[in-house]
Amino acid sequence: MGGPWTLERIRELDETDPLAEVRRRFELPHGILYLDGNSLGALACGVAPRVRAVVEDEWGVGLAGSWVTGAWMEAPARVGNRIAPLIGAREGEVLVADTTSIALAKLVGAALDAQPDRHVVLSTSDNFPSDLYAAAAAAARAGATLEVVDRHGLQAALTGDVAVVCLTHVDFRTGALHPIPDVTRAAHDAGALMLWDLCHSAGAVPVDCEENGVDLAVGCSYKYLNGGPGAPSFLYVRRSLQDRLDNPLPGWLGHDAPFNFEPVYRPAAGIARFLTSTPPVLQLAALDAALDAFEGVAIGAVRQKSLALSDLFIDLVDEADVPGLEVASPRPHDRRGSQVSLRHPMAGEVVAAAADRAVIGDLRPPDICRFGLAAPYLSFEDVYRAAATVIEVARTL
Amino acid sequence: MGGPWTLERIRELDETDPLAEVRRRFELPHGILYLDGNSLGALACGVAPRVRAVVEDEWGVGLAGSWVTGAWMEAPARVGNRIAPLIGAREGEVLVADTTSIALAKLVGAALDAQPDRHVVLSTSDNFPSDLYAAAAAAARAGATLEVVDRHGLQAALTGDVAVVCLTHVDFRTGALHPIPDVTRAAHDAGALMLWDLCHSAGAVPVDCEENGVDLAVGCSYKYLNGGPGAPSFLYVRRSLQDRLDNPLPGWLGHDAPFNFEPVYRPAAGIARFLTSTPPVLQLAALDAALDAFEGVAIGAVRQKSLALSDLFIDLVDEADVPGLEVASPRPHDRRGSQVSLRHPMAGEVVAAAADRAVIGDLRPPDICRFGLAAPYLSFEDVYRAAATVIEVARTL
Repeated sequence: MGGPWTLERIRELDETDPLAEVRRRFELPHGILYLDGNSLGALACGVAPRVRAVVEDEWGVGLAGSWVTGAWMEAPARVGNRIAPLIGAREGEVLVADTTSIALAKLVGAALDAQPDRHVVLSTSDNFPSDLYAAAAAAARAGATLEVVDRHGLQAALTGDVAVVCLTHVDFRTGALHPIPDVTRAAHDAGALMLWDLCHSAGAVPVDCEENGVDLAVGCSYKYLNGGPGAPSFLYVRRSLQDRLDNPLPGWLGHDAPFNFEPVYRPAAGIARFLTSTPPVLQLAALDAALDAFEGVAIGAVRQKSLALSDLFIDLVDEADVPGLEVASPRPHDRRGSQVSLRHPMAGEVVAAAADRAVIGDLRPPDICRFGLAAPYLSFEDVYRAAATVIEVARTL
Repeated sequence: MGGPWTLERIRELDETDPLAEVRRRFELPHGILYLDGNSLGALACGVAPRVRAVVEDEWGVGLAGSWVTGAWMEAPARVGNRIAPLIGAREGEVLVADTTSIALAKLVGAALDAQPDRHVVLSTSDNFPSDLYAAAAAAARAGATLEVVDRHGLQAALTGDVAVVCLTHVDFRTGALHPIPDVTRAAHDAGALMLWDLCHSAGAVPVDCEENGVDLAVGCSYKYLNGGPGAPSFLYVRRSLQDRLDNPLPGWLGHDAPFNFEPVYRPAAGIARFLTSTPPVLQLAALDAALDAFEGVAIGAVRQKSLALSDLFIDLVDEADVPGLEVASPRPHDRRGSQVSLRHPMAGEVVAAAADRAVIGDLRPPDICRFGLAAPYLSFEDVYRAAATVIEVARTL
């Protein structure tokens, strides 16, 4: 691809887009261009009726009996199994429960407990701050420390004292992407476990946990998985590791026999031991229904379209050449997630003015305008128009 | 009160019941008598429309903007403030987030960290097992131990090495109730903090955290608070303690400035530091709407009716004198929660046969039939008919 772009050329791209029909699986509000799906994914069509049925029929009529008839207790594993193929994991390797920071606390704690001779959790300074907070606390509690290095200093910091490397695949500010195969291999070469935060990857960027030998992963489900506001996080533990790790935040649902109400904890076999407490049934129902939007959609095709959308956005910004407005996301495909971040000294004003014109992105202070490219529901024309608006408002500031 | 009971006398009780109208605030399915509200509370009328509005309008149309316009981020504190009066807490002392076992891990961990010279968490063997699992893990991680004693051995175990006493107010099996004022005073006399699990109390049994000097509490909101399946837990920290305790499971929402994305954790002032991660917006909306059912209802009146209902249930069982069926719940009002538990050697069969006749209770193995008495939506006639059915099925076994 490459400019100059015209609406005609753009429409040709939409006409030949193999995912064009997927857009109809979402209830998008009229009149706005939504490029903030990396903050909160859009509402898929099946979600409202499904949540309604769970509230009115399963809860309202079935009451406590629906724990059995509605298979509510199984939802964390069942929905986890639906996320598994999107991150290249196998059945029985993914659970949906808690929040990303709690999931991280569990897995970092478990990784440290399993390797008492290693005392460092390694991360990078551009990691999502909440991950650093959770990892630092988990490390301190295990008598270890969190070591935070520059992204380029990772290799040098991979000493024999590192128990687990804890990184976010796609940088929340710039969209820069760590190469999972290389970093995972380097962690393994140093004898460390590798934990990936897939918050900005799942549903947008292929990961392939199995092929890359990823040990542990967490991620949220309300971004590109469209699970809804506050949807629970997911947690992945490679099968061969599951019985070697203990959940440092145990609760009855991770017990081998929760309804025996035994006084002493005995962890369940497999991934179930990483459950703690009662699952958020309404949120899980929403997420489950949202995942229907991925039925028959190859994550590779999503990625391909997302890259084409972001290439288009970047091309348009380059072409416009607005003083002060520059592309902050990496340009090579293998280094960029599913977003385009633009730097501007008045980023807050750019985002606000674009929103006033119905183009929704978000601000990451101090100077990043962030635009998420959710390929399942964005068209090339959407991105073309959104970029035009952003360029226009930046030009007039 | 006292037998013999007739339907006429029962109906008189319903006619003079000051809470009789509150029942209309719930969507109860026809044809069943639901005495399992201590497992999952019934659906209040405002919940379905509220959840629908949050899904279809706030999420579907407002999208990420609803984090601000829908005040989603404030929901944990806002809904917490609505629970506060039901447990005798003040504004700014209650948050709704996570699950009960995670909330316990936070507060037990915080209590231990704040008292490094004390190395014991004290609990009782009849505590809810998940509480014991969470407390034991939190203790181990802080280099302390969980000491589990018989309910009657509490006083003797209250040595100067106890950092926190961690008990469930109402026993999940029998409904036996710890006297909060006495136990809390004893804990304080020993220099320990007192943590109450209010899962089976909140919304049914008055607690009065402030008057009793309760330090810490947790509880679930899907039982007598009717928050729905998997509704998040609540967490209470006495105001004067809040800035002395650290959240051992930190995350960005407990940071003093979450949207500054600072690399190092700085806890927020007050109760907010006990937040970790993104709130489950749909579940919080359901709970918030469910709490409308308590508007204008004094928790003392709920308790009075609940005791009258359970007295009636107990009287009827006594009067029937069925071989093998006996009351397992304490009889004195000040020793009983909001449930009636019956012991029967074939408890499972009793519960199943009653359910076949549309009377819903639940089983707690090996021999407890458990019936929750949710005063806001149960009538005396409901309880009369339910007891009659239970007695009848037990008699024919």
